[in-house]
Amino acid sequence: MRRILIPFVLCASLACAQQVSPADAERLAIRHLLEAQVDAWNRHDLEGFMKAYWRSDDLTFFSGANATEGWQTTLDHYRQRYQGEGKEMGKLDFYDLRVELLGSDAAFVRGHWHLLMKSGHEQGGVFTLVLKKFPEGWRIVHDHTS
Amino acid sequence: MRRILIPFVLCASLACAQQVSPADAERLAIRHLLEAQVDAWNRHDLEGFMKAYWRSDDLTFFSGANATEGWQTTLDHYRQRYQGEGKEMGKLDFYDLRVELLGSDAAFVRGHWHLLMKSGHEQGGVFTLVLKKFPEGWRIVHDHTS
Repeated sequence: MRRILIPFVLCASLACAQQVSPADAERLAIRHLLEAQVDAWNRHDLEGFMKAYWRSDDLTFFSGANATEGWQTTLDHYRQRYQGEGKEMGKLDFYDLRVELLGSDAAFVRGHWHLLMKSGHEQGGVFTLVLKKFPEGWRIVHDHTS
Repeated sequence: MRRILIPFVLCASLACAQQVSPADAERLAIRHLLEAQVDAWNRHDLEGFMKAYWRSDDLTFFSGANATEGWQTTLDHYRQRYQGEGKEMGKLDFYDLRVELLGSDAAFVRGHWHLLMKSGHEQGGVFTLVLKKFPEGWRIVHDHTS
């Protein structure tokens, strides 16, 4: 039995190593970052949501026809838009995500977003994210949402 | 006179070589691509305008909340929107361009666009472009305009 099992286990490990290439691992890390972002949004944790963004004054955020700059300004924008009086965050979903590496420490993501409010009202659109890999991990350095 | 002129010419060449780094040259090539694009638009040459885009079915174009795919679909979209009956292309301007390299063969551009129609009506907004360097030069592989 052991004779059969050892080659099988070895084989399975090799197959696994072959399947997850370094590029796949990076793409997966970016997907996890965005999943964590959606989870944070859906528990109404804006600070948690903002962890995916580069904590820098050079972060850029394009929303519709407007351009803002800086991590703090981006957080303020979200607070004003989704946590102000009479506002709600709703339930967020990202779908049709396409994660593309642009080198060893840069990537971009194309995706769709959907927001379902308690009232049943729905919003949606597309986004483009540019990400860079920092010592602390992948972070969004530019977000264009419309 | 010659003794004075030769060191001066050498000096000027060295200064020039120091000023234009390979990265500066790439950023400049991207700026020229976008200038040529604006020039083509303003002489109502949509095919010329489209030369800046990757001629591939994998080109992606996000406009407002809509996502389209493919070079031909993008050209058709522009034709329908700006060359249909009663439509006009107007005078296009790009401003506040920020060209950032993301490696040796990838870059992204943040910018603002402005369109002035004959009637005096103005439109404007922001765009994010992702570009890759191909043997034929830099091309836009993804455009997000809103």
